[in-house]
Formats: sequence, C-alpha cells, structure tokens
Amino acid sequence: MSLSAGQSLRQIRARRPLVHQISNYVVMNETANATLALGALPVMAHAREEVEEMVALAGALVLNIGTLSPHWVDAMLVAGKAANAGGVPVVLDPVGAGATRYRTDTARRILEQVKVTVLRGNQGEVATLVGIAAEVRGVESIGGGGERGELARTAARSLGLVAAVTGAVDHVSDGDRVFAVANGHELLAAVTGTGCMSSAITGCFLALKRDAPVEAAAEALAAFGVAGEDAARAAKGPGSFHVGLYDALAALDPDTLDSRVKIT
Amino acid sequence: MSLSAGQSLRQIRARRPLVHQISNYVVMNETANATLALGALPVMAHAREEVEEMVALAGALVLNIGTLSPHWVDAMLVAGKAANAGGVPVVLDPVGAGATRYRTDTARRILEQVKVTVLRGNQGEVATLVGIAAEVRGVESIGGGGERGELARTAARSLGLVAAVTGAVDHVSDGDRVFAVANGHELLAAVTGTGCMSSAITGCFLALKRDAPVEAAAEALAAFGVAGEDAARAAKGPGSFHVGLYDALAALDPDTLDSRVKIT
Amino acid sequence: MSLSAGQSLRQIRARRPLVHQISNYVVMNETANATLALGALPVMAHAREEVEEMVALAGALVLNIGTLSPHWVDAMLVAGKAANAGGVPVVLDPVGAGATRYRTDTARRILEQVKVTVLRGNQGEVATLVGIAAEVRGVESIGGGGERGELARTAARSLGLVAAVTGAVDHVSDGDRVFAVANGHELLAAVTGTGCMSSAITGCFLALKRDAPVEAAAEALAAFGVAGEDAARAAKGPGSFHVGLYDALAALDPDTLDSRVKIT
Repeated sequence: MSLSAGQSLRQIRARRPLVHQISNYVVMNETANATLALGALPVMAHAREEVEEMVALAGALVLNIGTLSPHWVDAMLVAGKAANAGGVPVVLDPVGAGATRYRTDTARRILEQVKVTVLRGNQGEVATLVGIAAEVRGVESIGGGGERGELARTAARSLGLVAAVTGAVDHVSDGDRVFAVANGHELLAAVTGTGCMSSAITGCFLALKRDAPVEAAAEALAAFGVAGEDAARAAKGPGSFHVGLYDALAALDPDTLDSRVKIT
Repeated sequence: MSLSAGQSLRQIRARRPLVHQISNYVVMNETANATLALGALPVMAHAREEVEEMVALAGALVLNIGTLSPHWVDAMLVAGKAANAGGVPVVLDPVGAGATRYRTDTARRILEQVKVTVLRGNQGEVATLVGIAAEVRGVESIGGGGERGELARTAARSLGLVAAVTGAVDHVSDGDRVFAVANGHELLAAVTGTGCMSSAITGCFLALKRDAPVEAAAEALAAFGVAGEDAARAAKGPGSFHVGLYDALAALDPDTLDSRVKIT
Repeated sequence: MSLSAGQSLRQIRARRPLVHQISNYVVMNETANATLALGALPVMAHAREEVEEMVALAGALVLNIGTLSPHWVDAMLVAGKAANAGGVPVVLDPVGAGATRYRTDTARRILEQVKVTVLRGNQGEVATLVGIAAEVRGVESIGGGGERGELARTAARSLGLVAAVTGAVDHVSDGDRVFAVANGHELLAAVTGTGCMSSAITGCFLALKRDAPVEAAAEALAAFGVAGEDAARAAKGPGSFHVGLYDALAALDPDTLDSRVKIT
C-alpha cells in the first residue's frame, strides 16, 4: 500500500472513525481535542464495565499508561483483548517505561497479553521494552538505546509489531522497512502530551488503514509534524504553540499535505 | 418568572454561587474555567467522604458521567440525594448514554434515585433516556430521536424535569412550554467538552434561579451560545476558539446580553 | 543564602530537575505545562505501586489534595515518607482545607506523617490548618485568618515548616523572617489552577535550593508573579491570559528577572 498522508486524512474526515482512548489524566483533554481537530471522533472510557462494548464500536484503540493504576491496567487489558477479538487495531503508548518497574512491567504485560499493532514511544521507552539500556527521567527520554532507526527495526522484530520511535526525527519500522519522518518542531517538546497526541493521531490513521500499519504510523507522525511546523510559525512560546497546534491540525489540507511530508 | 439572561448574569457575578461539579477527567479543567470565567465559583469534589458536605455549601450540583466508574457513580448518587435533601438544584449531563449499556444504565439509575432539575444532553443521549431509538457514536450524537423540540417536551414529561436538548438549535422544555435557543456557533462542536461546559453554565444560572429552571436553562444556553459567537469571530480554528471562549464568557455584558439572545 | 530568582531560574534550566507531582484531576495538565515551560521536568505518578520509586528520582515532590480520594491520599503519604527518607523536599498544597472535614483532616494527616518543607496555600486554607477561623467557599478563600504576613509566620512556627500564604501579595515565612512578594496580577484569580501552578513552580525552585526553602519559595512566587504580569499585558481575558502564562514562564529571562522581582 502506498504512502499518502493526504489521502488518509481525506478519508478520516469523510468517515470520522471513533478512536477509543484509555489514556492518562494529564493529557486526556489534549488527545481528545487533537483527535477531534484532525477530523476523527474521540471517546474516553476506562471502566471495566464498558470498555469491551465501547471498543467494539471503535475504529482503533489507543492505550496510554501515563498515569496508570491497577484498575486502569485491568481495563486496558480487557479492552485490548476485546480489540484483538474484534479486529480493531491497537496503539500502545508506554509512557515512562523505564522510569519505574511498574511502568515497565505494565507495558510488558500489555505487550504479552494484547496483540499491539503500533508501539509509539520515545527512545528510552522503546529501548527499555526491547531490553536495551536507556536513560529515562520521569517520562522524558534522555538518551541511550542506540540509533533510532535501528531501534525501531529491532523493536518491531522482537516484539512483532510496528514500532514508532519518536524524537527530532521519528523512525517507524515493521521490522523490515524503516521510514524516517523528518517533520516536526522543537516546540513539540515544550508542551506536555504531544507524544500522547501523536499516539492518538496514529490511532486515527490506523483506523482508516488497518492493513498497512507502518504506512499509517508514518503518515500520522508526518501529518502531526506538519501541524507542529505550522503551529510554530505564529507561536510566542509553548502556550500559544499548544493552542495553535489544534488550529493547525484542523487546517491540514489533504490536497497539499503530501507535498509537505518528509518521509524517507 | 420572565427571561433575562442579562439580569441572571448580573446576579451570578454579584453573588458568585458555588457550583459543585462531579464531572469527567477530560473536561474538568474546562468546566471549572468556564464557570469561573462566567463569574461563579467552581468546585470539583468526588470523594464519597466529602460530597455531602461539599454539596451542602453549593448553589447547584452538576453531575456528568463522561468518564464514569463505580466509585464515581456512587459519589454522584450520594451527592445527588444530599442535594435533593438540601434543596440544591441538580443538573445531569448523561454523556454517552446510548453508546454503552453502562452509561445508559447509570444515567437511568441517577434519574431514578435523584430528583434531577435539568437534564442537559444531545439528541441521541436524551432520546436514549426516553426510550426512543437514536444513533450515538461514542459520545457524539449522530441523529435520530425525532424533532428536538418535541424530544425535549417528551423527555420533560416522561422524566419529570426540565430537558435541554442541545444541537445547532437548543430546545428546552418543562413539558409544557418549549424554548428554542438559536445562539451558538458550529465551532462549539469542534472542541471537546463544550457540551459539558454548557451543563456547568446551566448549573450557574440554576443556582440563581432555582424556582425557574426552564428559564435558567434557556438563559444559560443562550449566554453560552453568545459567548461562542463572540469567540468564533477571531478564531483561526478549534484551538484559538477554545481559548477565546473563556475570554468571551468573561466579557459577556449583562447590559447588552438580552439584545443578543435568540430565544423563541 | 541570598535571594536571586534569576540565578535559581538559570540553574533550573541548566539542570532540569524532575518534579514529581501527585496532584488533582483539574490541573494536572496545567501544572505539568507550567513546570515544563519554566524549564524543569514534570512527572505525574500516583500509583501506590510506583510512587516510592519515582520520588527517589525526583528533585522535589509536590502533593496537592484538590480532588482527593482514599487511594490518592495513601499514595501521597507513601510518597511523602519516601521523599523524607531520601532527602527530597516536599511541597504541600492543601486545596480546599477548611471547606470539608475530609480535606482539612487529610491535610493535617499529611502534615503529621510527612515532614513538609513548604506549605503553599491561600489564606483560608493556611488559617484552617493552624486552627484560626477562616471562611472558605469550595476551594476559594473568602477571608479571615488575620493579616497574611503574621499568618505565614504563625503557620511556619506552629507547623515547623516554611509557610507561603498567597493572595494579592504573597507572604512567605520560616517562622522568623517574613518575605512579602508583591508580584502578580489579578487575572491569576480568574483561571483555575494558578495556585496549584505556583505550588509546582515552588517545587522547581526548591529542587535547586533545598537548603534555603524560604528563599526558594519567595523566588518561585516572585518568578510566577512576574510571568503573570507579562501574560496580562496582551491578555483579552482569562483564556488568553492562561495561554500567555506558559509563554511568559518560558520567556522569563534569568538576566533581568531579579530587577523585576518585588520581594521585601
């Protein structure tokens, strides 16, 4: 399947897939608004009592362990298994894996019990999950894990999924091919939850392109990066950049998007 | 009692009612800031240990099931009953009723155990609660439920409350009269939580006008809609619209508000 | 140790301390973004399973009881004790103490079981905790508690910590000295969570200056107040002020900050 972020975006806006997110307290509003700005429909639901029913309605499921606790982990596992049973693609954002054992173990538990379609994390998180030494401070990756393209490939192979390792340049791999996505802006690192937003956006693209997860993930990160570039233009700092990011996501133009995408 | 959003707004700013909200993780910051921008005082408290005491201090209670789970549902029931015992008016926002059984059943349980003053929902949610077929995707209403004015009247009669069905035009009914509120802007649908904000704003007006809940709800939705119109003027997209909405709520002018209200 | 908000800010940006926050649902995004905009690294983690490990990595711990419930209180106590054991300074923000018994009792319990370095609250909250009559409505202080400088001194002495009582003018005391901080802007009171942000910022300064907590708290409140002054300049209301606050925090200039600080 060929890469076209513009075509995928056009389809997202036409079909408005429901993207079920079990996410963290810090960024739920942000990922919901990013999803909505792009053109899809977000829904946040985490109760054990309803996640199976909700995910059955969804085009994609996004699991994010940013502020995890036992009930939430249980719900993620239940929702993830229901997604697998129903053929709904799953994105995992292992926020802070490597920072505490609980986060690392939970991310691993999800990877063992749920067939994850796309793992979207920073260098330290992904390196941790494939057993490579990395430095993580809280939920920020400081370094380690080796070259990111190789890390993505290794993670994809060893975990059997599409791995998206984001940073200054994002790398997405299915274990064979590696796409480098050079869109984005450094202000993205100055706002909490932009990584989580990129995972939510990945869910939006995946909902439309579930048979081509590596292309979906690369397109999603490129589209999000282009929005970041646009938002940075008028930004006076992280606050106005953050606001402009939603404007820019909504203003992304399917007709011109591909000309701006930097995927190699 | 006559309709005057301007007069009610003036009173809200003079008396600053405390509006106790048991709301969802996605929008708590947003509903708190909308409440504060309007001129009332928000307080978020959901612990079983304190909700009865908190609601006793409040001018209104707003229950919102957007990210419910068992402990929160219990707290909503306890708080609702305490509100009823103390004569504090209650707004229910049945977010996502119709999407999952858990949400539908929870909204029904609250309606059975708590005397709700105003039910504020979209077409699909309210239709679900009166047993009319409707299409709900996640927390978005897609259609069904028939003509909204009639739906509001039917809901008001069958549930014994004031029903506010919001959409492009909002309809508010006490089962007898039906007010149509034509204020608002389509960008309101592009930001997560604007429905929840309208429920919070309804709580603010209700706190000042508890003997006239149908007027309070219509005024609240009109005032919120006018703020939406103002915010849309300078908006470049959903992000800047969202920010402008708080500015616009704070800038609402009691002296001119009634001239802009479109209630028929 | 001498007062220099500029020098402390320079060190924060150079060393990027990790500030572990167990905060409330309403403001987590806001305190995380304020921390990040200033130049430190926020991390939110509240699970009993990981707080001890996380706080061991942190330069400061900020406890905020804004939307408390039993599990969260337990986590705060565990994290606080671990912070004490590891020499990590602790900020307590007793949101709403005085409004309900649960909040008052919880704040007292934390003060008894955890050695708190800085207590940062409004007049009503701090007065409540030292047993002086005060009026609190929800989470807003209405009055009472006497003159704020004296209140800060009394609280510092009776509770054995640094007390920061914030309001139009903030007062910070170690029980001996009292610093008055006259920076800030009235729009700070129009946005939910600015008090919580000031507690998070206090944590950032404390992480760099743990041996001088009274200076750290005064500098933090002054720096935050200067950012508020800057944000107010272009604000059209609480929404744009809120956005501008993050821009202003990021734009704070270590070289000129001290010339703008009003600490007496």
